[in-house]
Amino acid sequence: MPSLARNRYGKSRVRLVKVVRHPDRHDLQEVMVQILFEGDFDSCYVSGDNSRILPTDTMKNTVYALARQGPVDPIEVFGQNLAQHFFRGNPQITRLEIDIEETFWHRVHVDGSPQGSTFQKHGPHVRTATIAGDREGLTVSAGINEMIILKTSDSGFEGYIHDPFTTLRETSDRLFGTALTAKWLYSRSDLPFNDVWSKVMRGIQTSFATHKSLSVQHTLYDIGRAVLDGNPEVDEILLSMPNKHCLLVDLAPLGLDNPNEIFVPTDEPHGSIEARLVR
Amino acid sequence: MPSLARNRYGKSRVRLVKVVRHPDRHDLQEVMVQILFEGDFDSCYVSGDNSRILPTDTMKNTVYALARQGPVDPIEVFGQNLAQHFFRGNPQITRLEIDIEETFWHRVHVDGSPQGSTFQKHGPHVRTATIAGDREGLTVSAGINEMIILKTSDSGFEGYIHDPFTTLRETSDRLFGTALTAKWLYSRSDLPFNDVWSKVMRGIQTSFATHKSLSVQHTLYDIGRAVLDGNPEVDEILLSMPNKHCLLVDLAPLGLDNPNEIFVPTDEPHGSIEARLVR
Amino acid sequence: MPSLARNRYGKSRVRLVKVVRHPDRHDLQEVMVQILFEGDFDSCYVSGDNSRILPTDTMKNTVYALARQGPVDPIEVFGQNLAQHFFRGNPQITRLEIDIEETFWHRVHVDGSPQGSTFQKHGPHVRTATIAGDREGLTVSAGINEMIILKTSDSGFEGYIHDPFTTLRETSDRLFGTALTAKWLYSRSDLPFNDVWSKVMRGIQTSFATHKSLSVQHTLYDIGRAVLDGNPEVDEILLSMPNKHCLLVDLAPLGLDNPNEIFVPTDEPHGSIEARLVR
Amino acid sequence: MPSLARNRYGKSRVRLVKVVRHPDRHDLQEVMVQILFEGDFDSCYVSGDNSRILPTDTMKNTVYALARQGPVDPIEVFGQNLAQHFFRGNPQITRLEIDIEETFWHRVHVDGSPQGSTFQKHGPHVRTATIAGDREGLTVSAGINEMIILKTSDSGFEGYIHDPFTTLRETSDRLFGTALTAKWLYSRSDLPFNDVWSKVMRGIQTSFATHKSLSVQHTLYDIGRAVLDGNPEVDEILLSMPNKHCLLVDLAPLGLDNPNEIFVPTDEPHGSIEARLVR
Repeated sequence: MPSLARNRYGKSRVRLVKVVRHPDRHDLQEVMVQILFEGDFDSCYVSGDNSRILPTDTMKNTVYALARQGPVDPIEVFGQNLAQHFFRGNPQITRLEIDIEETFWHRVHVDGSPQGSTFQKHGPHVRTATIAGDREGLTVSAGINEMIILKTSDSGFEGYIHDPFTTLRETSDRLFGTALTAKWLYSRSDLPFNDVWSKVMRGIQTSFATHKSLSVQHTLYDIGRAVLDGNPEVDEILLSMPNKHCLLVDLAPLGLDNPNEIFVPTDEPHGSIEARLVR
Repeated sequence: MPSLARNRYGKSRVRLVKVVRHPDRHDLQEVMVQILFEGDFDSCYVSGDNSRILPTDTMKNTVYALARQGPVDPIEVFGQNLAQHFFRGNPQITRLEIDIEETFWHRVHVDGSPQGSTFQKHGPHVRTATIAGDREGLTVSAGINEMIILKTSDSGFEGYIHDPFTTLRETSDRLFGTALTAKWLYSRSDLPFNDVWSKVMRGIQTSFATHKSLSVQHTLYDIGRAVLDGNPEVDEILLSMPNKHCLLVDLAPLGLDNPNEIFVPTDEPHGSIEARLVR
Repeated sequence: MPSLARNRYGKSRVRLVKVVRHPDRHDLQEVMVQILFEGDFDSCYVSGDNSRILPTDTMKNTVYALARQGPVDPIEVFGQNLAQHFFRGNPQITRLEIDIEETFWHRVHVDGSPQGSTFQKHGPHVRTATIAGDREGLTVSAGINEMIILKTSDSGFEGYIHDPFTTLRETSDRLFGTALTAKWLYSRSDLPFNDVWSKVMRGIQTSFATHKSLSVQHTLYDIGRAVLDGNPEVDEILLSMPNKHCLLVDLAPLGLDNPNEIFVPTDEPHGSIEARLVR
Repeated sequence: MPSLARNRYGKSRVRLVKVVRHPDRHDLQEVMVQILFEGDFDSCYVSGDNSRILPTDTMKNTVYALARQGPVDPIEVFGQNLAQHFFRGNPQITRLEIDIEETFWHRVHVDGSPQGSTFQKHGPHVRTATIAGDREGLTVSAGINEMIILKTSDSGFEGYIHDPFTTLRETSDRLFGTALTAKWLYSRSDLPFNDVWSKVMRGIQTSFATHKSLSVQHTLYDIGRAVLDGNPEVDEILLSMPNKHCLLVDLAPLGLDNPNEIFVPTDEPHGSIEARLVR
């Protein structure tokens, strides 16, 4: 009889909006939560015995209940509260993972000032947090998904291997666009998470903007190094930086030159570069 | 034999990035262009005679060539240049339409100041322009697609028809979220298009933020009225405002109240409300 | 004061699954419905008076109620039932449109035979129907969205206009791929809709497969002609056939030839070809 | 200084169509390939030295070259050929992974017979293969992504944990819909891959169709067991079966009953169930 190796179950895409109504303004928060349980669920798989299964519908309800009973902001704390709630009530689980994505809603400005109860969504980038672990301890990670950034200077790619199928031209001046996804691991679970998140993000953006890039890998490393150097609270960072190519258009057949001015942005194929940096 | 009624052909999703390199900074522009021709193309359809067909591949090349030869900014002028080029060289066409979408790239800030050659994309909203018409004249329209906005106060929905299948509860306080798409028609083709576009957009956002909304229709009308009142250059406006429902979660079965605080944002089903306002 | 030109409102993306349980098998149907009303709704827009507004939530409920009270199959009849229901109960509306998309669920086979209650979805193509009109009469249209088809023979593109920006090479042998969308108008409202739909679709597929294509337009016309010739119930047909280019890969720089064998399928840019054929 | 932990780079979304032209018919194959390299690339990351970097553009070219030089069918062999080519020419890499997705193109029928050079795409399901490993050996896995299947009988969910936030009703008769993704590991690299793939898929579909399901986990296990029992070539299988809920519509407020007939299919939230089964 086959045996179960790693397995997990839970609920994904639990969407939630919370409005906190202050006298002078409202705060709006939108998150999407995923909850995954691990434990000894063999009897459910093998014989259909559900007596150790908390329904995923209940996980969803729990997200709404805890959002009513306490803060959703910052998401790293909300995620820890969810994790502790589930561990407390569910002796059958040995590990869990809570993943949260938070949408960016910016206040709309009217006559130059932020309006108190109107918001505009900006994306596709979302802030992320992951709370994972077992009863011995939880790790807290934070990050960003799909921040689309592009630099038009200080990027080249030269000196690489040329094999018989290599046709790419070396260049000291290319566009460098990516949809950056980062996830960094905190050393503690009781940080001022919003401030630290913003500080890490400033480090990422500053490195990307100012680095003399000799390759995507080279800049990815510089970003990771900047985050680890500037943030002692961060133990490690995983960076994924797909190379979203902007191809220089060959205008010669049209009787025109193209001094690095006109490009075709493309979605596929794309380079994939990812690395984890640790102290 | 069947006869051809309205027909058109062209090229869609022609993507272009243009970098303008100033001494102190770069400007970055990303657009996506669609070109559609109308004319007497019966012989192509009926007998496969392509002698009156400009290939859509050539339309694409023309976008890149004209972007090299002149400005892409503002898109309303770039679109007019494309239209005039195509009319000049193609006596076989009687009407055409140029649709342009422009992505929002914001400068990344480093140490509080905008960096000269690094940009971040914000969406899903895109600025739009449409140049359409025949040899007698072209109309210029501008707009925005998919601006996701939400207000948490001053929105209700009451006093509507109740039929036997009506279960919706009347409310004087609900969330009002939408993905606003607007397209407005200019009375002239030689405006300072970037400034006017920003002025119209401020009108849209101010109306949405400050209106005491009794329904989506009610606010849609107020937005249209504000744009027409505040912008004599605008002759008419088409507004589409899907009602992206945020449903109040019923927490009573969980033993909790929910004083308009916890909501589920949903993508489907959604309300669809659209109207054109004219002077 | 601005006046309202054309306006409409309703509900979109109302999704429904209906299971009909026969002794020997189940029938499964999945549809997505959109309902749009037109009428004199000025007082709602201008002054927020909702007394003439049937909530879109009620439209949604009505879809579920009528699906329980009568057949959803064929969708052309379900749409007519919805239209008549809404006209009957809502004197304030003057026109309406019901759009229905039906998903393709095929029975799963076990040991070579169709199993009675297990289904697999196939897409992205969906069958469509539109019921539209006023109190004087409704038109019934049917169609298909996004049928992705490709032919590897009998397709060329030659003899077109060459202007200074034309670089496309003429070819008598290319791949021809498209995501065909068709919508045809019936002359009557009481047809055996499932049978007719299948007959029309066979005509579309046969024409696409067997036509000696000299251009996308040429084949589009042949498809339309075949449908109108073969189906007296059809009064007119609108066809949209984007040209989803498969580009021949230039293998010469890699030291290889490429006798029309290796292609890159692309999503953007794409040609756009659409036409309406009438008797 | 931070150190590099696991890192990899490569090319994603390399799309390819190959047409094989037989006297009586054409064969059409569409695949999308991803290639990822691991090795000692520290000098690239840390100092921008690209001398050990094969450009991802070259990886893309290699896919096209090898598709011209040999068969793409079956994808498990094509993937092995790619892997061996890259290992042979690139001493700097220690591990690699080749992921291939193959689109389903079915022959179009004309007058009841398959036509020789016209095809229709069916999805969203795609066949997959993964070749991964180091110079000591490669593993070959195969699978399917996103097969959307639904059963209307023999599915219940009862006897689960009820905590204070549980509101889900127990049921012995529900719809069970999922988008099944499976990946199984072969014990050998020289199998008749197309035949084995079809045999495994029949096992998956038969189990899903005939199982008396007491939970998603219960059926997932039965599917895995069926595959392992029926296919000695398969060493282990990873199954992911999100629970795409079809919610019974409460028609009571509309004055109607609903004997398990009318449902709302939903995309979010969804259950997530995944497990790996080994011998």
